[in-house]
Amino acid sequence: MKCRKCKALAAVALPSHNTAFCAECYPDFFRSQVERSIHRHKMIAPQERVLVAVSGGKDSLALIMQLQELGHDVHGLHVDLDIPDSSPEARRVCETFCESLNVPLTVVELRREGLSIPLVKSKIKRPICSVCGKLKRYYFNKFAIENNFSVLATGHNLDDEVSRLFANTVRWDSAYLSDQGPLLPATAGFASKIKPLYRLTEFEIANFCFLRGIEHVTAPCPYSAKASFPIYKGLWSDLETRMSGAKVQFYENFLRDGRPVFAAWADRKESALVACSSCGYPTSAETCGVCRIKNMVGQEQEA
Amino acid sequence: MKCRKCKALAAVALPSHNTAFCAECYPDFFRSQVERSIHRHKMIAPQERVLVAVSGGKDSLALIMQLQELGHDVHGLHVDLDIPDSSPEARRVCETFCESLNVPLTVVELRREGLSIPLVKSKIKRPICSVCGKLKRYYFNKFAIENNFSVLATGHNLDDEVSRLFANTVRWDSAYLSDQGPLLPATAGFASKIKPLYRLTEFEIANFCFLRGIEHVTAPCPYSAKASFPIYKGLWSDLETRMSGAKVQFYENFLRDGRPVFAAWADRKESALVACSSCGYPTSAETCGVCRIKNMVGQEQEA
Repeated sequence: MKCRKCKALAAVALPSHNTAFCAECYPDFFRSQVERSIHRHKMIAPQERVLVAVSGGKDSLALIMQLQELGHDVHGLHVDLDIPDSSPEARRVCETFCESLNVPLTVVELRREGLSIPLVKSKIKRPICSVCGKLKRYYFNKFAIENNFSVLATGHNLDDEVSRLFANTVRWDSAYLSDQGPLLPATAGFASKIKPLYRLTEFEIANFCFLRGIEHVTAPCPYSAKASFPIYKGLWSDLETRMSGAKVQFYENFLRDGRPVFAAWADRKESALVACSSCGYPTSAETCGVCRIKNMVGQEQEA
Repeated sequence: MKCRKCKALAAVALPSHNTAFCAECYPDFFRSQVERSIHRHKMIAPQERVLVAVSGGKDSLALIMQLQELGHDVHGLHVDLDIPDSSPEARRVCETFCESLNVPLTVVELRREGLSIPLVKSKIKRPICSVCGKLKRYYFNKFAIENNFSVLATGHNLDDEVSRLFANTVRWDSAYLSDQGPLLPATAGFASKIKPLYRLTEFEIANFCFLRGIEHVTAPCPYSAKASFPIYKGLWSDLETRMSGAKVQFYENFLRDGRPVFAAWADRKESALVACSSCGYPTSAETCGVCRIKNMVGQEQEA
């Protein structure tokens, strides 16, 4: 196979795009995919500062590098989860990488918030992955709002998005289906959330990291559960093998034809958000989920 | 494993129901599933005559036998497609089986309508499976209406329904998603359509046929296309193996939480049906799909 662009011997075959690229031209394909997503969904306004959530994994590091190369004003934010044998290495990778790019990085330490993940895990009976996700989203948004970032970028890829969409479709979760997508516009108390890598697969991002020499964390989180996500990822991977383009079609068709139906439905029954009685952040209950977790972990008693 | 009912050695394991049955008790399980579906969706009113579409395959023969055993007043309808090496055997199987049950059977011959499937296939460029399906649905409904059957039962099983739902979900086809289900109520010009086997898998129906000694057609239609359906069926079969109950949950969740959302959406943009200018049947165009096919096959010229 030959490179679509320069006709040299191809290094990366992309059946879902019905094409292939050599090692030199592949990053151009990658950049154009990211540019196209940003442009089509109007993710970033001119001169807008972008806060990028970085975990140390391939997706977030590829994202911050690509956004910087596209000329955006990026700032990294890493949440240190305080998980032994995992968090120190993830933090080191983020710090080293951002320093090499000359990108400012802020680290939020959950330990300092009284929310070290091992402690939370020991106190809270719910699956730790969903609690950890909630905490990260809260602190990403809190930092963005408090530091005047109007847009928060995360490294979610096509496989993440398709698995999540499929999981919520199997449940026909209309609340989820009404507002998910590569751009969640800013609302009172929330920065806009963007996913510039949403059209790129894990394979395509791993290739970018390999070709650009990005050192990233590869070990899975030691707490990661036996979730249904890996099963769904495997299923869509099999389907993609047999029907090239299945993933991106499912997701793009959802954005075009599925989401508007659920959004119209949700409009009828929207519940207003109020300020959390404890921390002031927007919530649909009296106390927000993170303050409830803090209470459960025993912060209130210690205070 | 032991039979859930009589504790004898089990002959059929049903992981999705977390149970197993012996050969003698299995038909009781089967009957209760069919009864439950009919009851829950109010498919058949007391004393209502039921027209059952029979193809000669396992599903439709199991259906007509089970409905008769449940005390319903059933009448079989077979559409002879006139496909060489296939239709004569299917027709013979239906005739022999209905005779053995002492159930009346009517055969509609597409050849007499000028719509022999090999002729249609040679004249029409669209995929023959979708054209053939349209013709069968038309003649099933026509016979029902003209002979005062208010309800038409088909042998669609859980695998059919899940594959079709999934195919339409991948496309986010809101027209399809707004009104599909095990019961389509009667409307002007249309009998109600019911699928009493919708909670039973192909495996469960094949078991019923084996245990009850039902001779049925097993050869696939010689014209059946390389459709995406078999791929989707395989995918859901894999998923079911890893997550017992996945199929029935996807489908039942759709009926409860997905369909109402699409139905509300469809209500906004419903297009009125009018009588076909040629045959008088309800259609959204001036001439119905079957009359258009007839025209294409050349009936008009011969008339």
